[in-house]
Amino acid sequence: MSDQPIEGWFTEVFDRHGSAIALKVQEKLLDITSEYQHLEVYQTETYGRLMVLDGCVMLTDRDNFLYHEMMTHPALLTHGAPRRVVIIGGGDCGTLKEVLKHERVEHVTQIDIDEEVTNAARQFFPALVERNDDPRAELLFEDGVKWVDACDEESVDVLIIDSTDPVGPAEGLFKTDFLKRCHRILKPGGVMVQQSESPLYHTETIIKSLREDMGSAGFESVATLPFPQPTYPSGWWSCTMAGKGCDVTAFDPTTARTEHLELEYYTPELHKAALTLPPFMKRHLG
Amino acid sequence: MSDQPIEGWFTEVFDRHGSAIALKVQEKLLDITSEYQHLEVYQTETYGRLMVLDGCVMLTDRDNFLYHEMMTHPALLTHGAPRRVVIIGGGDCGTLKEVLKHERVEHVTQIDIDEEVTNAARQFFPALVERNDDPRAELLFEDGVKWVDACDEESVDVLIIDSTDPVGPAEGLFKTDFLKRCHRILKPGGVMVQQSESPLYHTETIIKSLREDMGSAGFESVATLPFPQPTYPSGWWSCTMAGKGCDVTAFDPTTARTEHLELEYYTPELHKAALTLPPFMKRHLG
Repeated sequence: MSDQPIEGWFTEVFDRHGSAIALKVQEKLLDITSEYQHLEVYQTETYGRLMVLDGCVMLTDRDNFLYHEMMTHPALLTHGAPRRVVIIGGGDCGTLKEVLKHERVEHVTQIDIDEEVTNAARQFFPALVERNDDPRAELLFEDGVKWVDACDEESVDVLIIDSTDPVGPAEGLFKTDFLKRCHRILKPGGVMVQQSESPLYHTETIIKSLREDMGSAGFESVATLPFPQPTYPSGWWSCTMAGKGCDVTAFDPTTARTEHLELEYYTPELHKAALTLPPFMKRHLG
Repeated sequence: MSDQPIEGWFTEVFDRHGSAIALKVQEKLLDITSEYQHLEVYQTETYGRLMVLDGCVMLTDRDNFLYHEMMTHPALLTHGAPRRVVIIGGGDCGTLKEVLKHERVEHVTQIDIDEEVTNAARQFFPALVERNDDPRAELLFEDGVKWVDACDEESVDVLIIDSTDPVGPAEGLFKTDFLKRCHRILKPGGVMVQQSESPLYHTETIIKSLREDMGSAGFESVATLPFPQPTYPSGWWSCTMAGKGCDVTAFDPTTARTEHLELEYYTPELHKAALTLPPFMKRHLG
């Protein structure tokens, strides 16, 4: 850990945003360079285990529930009755675990380009992979963009883009062209959701572009939901949903059954409220 | 800045929580030790100006709107028609500014023990003090606990405890005994609100105790509202409201008029939703 600016801490510096977060670490458990990226796992003092990809925090035991619940339940409950779900990225299997909690889902395919991420999850994050043996789950390790292109038209109910930041291996997942390909494989009434970075740092850039690109790709409705995420830049994150022939901005919390989902953060009321964006975001998004 | 672990950055280490945040700084603008605390002001690279008390981030230009709006509008709009508002602490005047946006408020008293905080706000944070000349505003620099004791019984509509952490000068503001004194000065139907630290770090400790203590002090209802706050520990913060003969857990967003409040974060819908706590908090709070 000699390349770390504070001895005994893992520090992630968000250079363009002039901010940084750090977690106190006890031990480095893994340090490998896969075909695609640099992968590290640390034992932290208070956040459980920490997974790092190319120097960026991917998840910790302690706070990943926020991200994984928000990447999954708003989209699945907006759809209402998804049977076929696809996850692009998500190699840590945390999103897969949340999707599999939905009993009416019949099949989930997770496509991550880097099997080493899933291997690391299997070895160091047992809670995330605990549902991987569910017969409804299919794990593939290949290029998500190519997989989408080979997928049958109008065959998917919910498509989750659980990617790293729009640089490196995930860059192609943030382009308009990819959104059009996603639109093609969704059934009418289908919903896609993509992680969309920080409301504080990225509303006028990444979030705004993504929403516009979703519109250009043919989606009739778009909704961005902010949520807390302590170990990501600014501690505040978002996901953005898009609907194919359905309105992702409409949600009736009284119709959502969530008792069986073992939730830590998500509530239907919170989902409903997140659809009313903070005024500063609304202003920037026009 | 030679005492900083990363040269050119202001770093706040949350020792007990094994985490830290850092902001890139360009210049230290103020470094004084008042009668009560160590006060610093920095020019940061991307967060505007930063005020630090005893090594803890108090506020930045960029993200203080979250905290100040959430410390003010939920309580005032829950009350519905507050005429007399009191702020204990809040020397930076950011909460005062938000309170003064409410046209029906007739008088606001801000009592901070340390005038140097307000002096620093006047010098370095002009946006926070821009309403200080409002004839409805009264600024006092004395011990808030003593002020509360000298205040007439049942004379205040909304009481805002905008304090630093429960160590140092603000320690007395987190004790049950102080809450009883607060209860005494509130009119029937009155609302108090106190900053209550991080949902991730403090739900089972500070938030739980505060809620129980509010009940013991005679308040009939209690509500904790989480909100994002990038530059505070964990990037996620909360305030806790208590009602004297009124229900702070009930709120009808359709009745709240907010057009004139020039809001950046708060919406009545978000307020309503925050009253439904994330399941992990509900579980810990019983």
